[in-house]
Amino acid sequence: MNNERLNKYISLINNRLKELIPECDFGEDAVHEAMKYSLSVGGKRIRPVLVLEFCRICGGCIDSALDFACALEMVHTYSLIHDDLPCMDDDDLRRGMPSCHIKFGEEYALLAGDGLLTRAFGVIANSSVAKNNPLIAVNAVSALSYLAGCNGMIGGQVIDLKNEDKEVTVETLEILDRLKTGALIRCSAVLGCLCAQADENQTDACIRYAEKIGHAFQVIDDILDVTGDVKELGKPIGSDVCNKKSTYVTLLGLEKSEKLADSLTNEAISSIEYFGDDANFLKELAIQLIKRSN
Amino acid sequence: MNNERLNKYISLINNRLKELIPECDFGEDAVHEAMKYSLSVGGKRIRPVLVLEFCRICGGCIDSALDFACALEMVHTYSLIHDDLPCMDDDDLRRGMPSCHIKFGEEYALLAGDGLLTRAFGVIANSSVAKNNPLIAVNAVSALSYLAGCNGMIGGQVIDLKNEDKEVTVETLEILDRLKTGALIRCSAVLGCLCAQADENQTDACIRYAEKIGHAFQVIDDILDVTGDVKELGKPIGSDVCNKKSTYVTLLGLEKSEKLADSLTNEAISSIEYFGDDANFLKELAIQLIKRSN
Repeated sequence: MNNERLNKYISLINNRLKELIPECDFGEDAVHEAMKYSLSVGGKRIRPVLVLEFCRICGGCIDSALDFACALEMVHTYSLIHDDLPCMDDDDLRRGMPSCHIKFGEEYALLAGDGLLTRAFGVIANSSVAKNNPLIAVNAVSALSYLAGCNGMIGGQVIDLKNEDKEVTVETLEILDRLKTGALIRCSAVLGCLCAQADENQTDACIRYAEKIGHAFQVIDDILDVTGDVKELGKPIGSDVCNKKSTYVTLLGLEKSEKLADSLTNEAISSIEYFGDDANFLKELAIQLIKRSN
Repeated sequence: MNNERLNKYISLINNRLKELIPECDFGEDAVHEAMKYSLSVGGKRIRPVLVLEFCRICGGCIDSALDFACALEMVHTYSLIHDDLPCMDDDDLRRGMPSCHIKFGEEYALLAGDGLLTRAFGVIANSSVAKNNPLIAVNAVSALSYLAGCNGMIGGQVIDLKNEDKEVTVETLEILDRLKTGALIRCSAVLGCLCAQADENQTDACIRYAEKIGHAFQVIDDILDVTGDVKELGKPIGSDVCNKKSTYVTLLGLEKSEKLADSLTNEAISSIEYFGDDANFLKELAIQLIKRSN
């Protein structure tokens, strides 16, 4: 795929993320360090990359979308920090590195998550877009709040908690994933399109693509849990199975899960036919995601 | 004091808070219940009352400030939920009732806090003010994010954590309080003034008042810890002393602390002389706060 563009995006995002976590005014830096650590520990930056590319494909300027992209990555990172806490998934490892609470202690991990979530909205409100067109920033805050909130990502975490150690149906698993993982990926389309002031056709196409790859992403994650290697995954292989978690693989079997991932990827690609060759980057990105599972 | 106005404000706030926590779309309501529980458990609603009164005194319409007021109360409530968690203060009681994690479990308390913080920003972005004047909403999101964030309220919590079981200086205690408690009270002035499109003189007066009563409030809290009764305080008397916490009383003694509270109250009252008799409600509110300690 167009690795040059991907690398450019990732480098823009990483540099801007560093700038957006300000120094601590009071010489007390444990939470700032924890925020920076969790933001810097790996991650493929899929959500912010998508914000930039959705903005570009809809005719917007990627520089103007950069702060929205970083805000979304901050919300994603906060959710991982809180998800790893002992009262939630109690995960000691994240992307192959010590989780935030292992490295900094539970109380600082809690506050680092709170701090990133709080900061994300401020980043949108202080962006260049907010200065030039405050209505776009207001709409971005509204979308991020909804999609990260109790009827979005947090809603997915609640369904996850309620079904721990239970076998769930594929339908429940789909709702869970659409919220827990899907909501923020859908948010990347909303934020990118808002920034570009995209029209309805463009926005619909981007959102459909985001929904399909969000779903594919989760199916592929479940496949990797049984076929992947520990280094790539950053967590022990088979941990979902050990935890008696229902996954696409446990519910549908490996072969059907692979077919589902294929067909979701194809649907993602057809969603953006509207953009013609300009959608090549997004098409290749979808294919790259599924290649992880092969 | 003008209890009719105070009661009207509180009733407006309580009714609106109920409306602003939407029903759960997915039939999974543990976090929604936890959010509603913590919002409804007592509390004097000082911050949102101040938002409404600052807006009114600066010539704005209190209806338009109501959603900003509720957003601030949501942020305050999230901070109490997370503060009570076992990894933080580990408090089983809040305002004389079981803390959120005691009633709903730690994982739901964590998510309820996250949900309230996330929702608060959406409430501002979806307010009538945001529709009529998005720039005001953008500035409100920016202020709330800053004052609730790592150089505001969360910063205060970090200083608190770092100094647990240590004797601190009065200067450190003042910085801690200015951030941990003071930042959100200052935020009530900023939000109320933004809503009313207050001028610089009005805004300066309101912020100075908020800073002084925020400080007085904390000194009075420390006094009540040794002189109050358990029912009013909602926590055991002398718990600060037992926890070896530095307070104004342990550092300055009771008499000097009472004098400090008096002089801060007087300074708060003189800050708003600018508004003449129209400031009577705020003056009486400051006096009412200090009466708690007698």
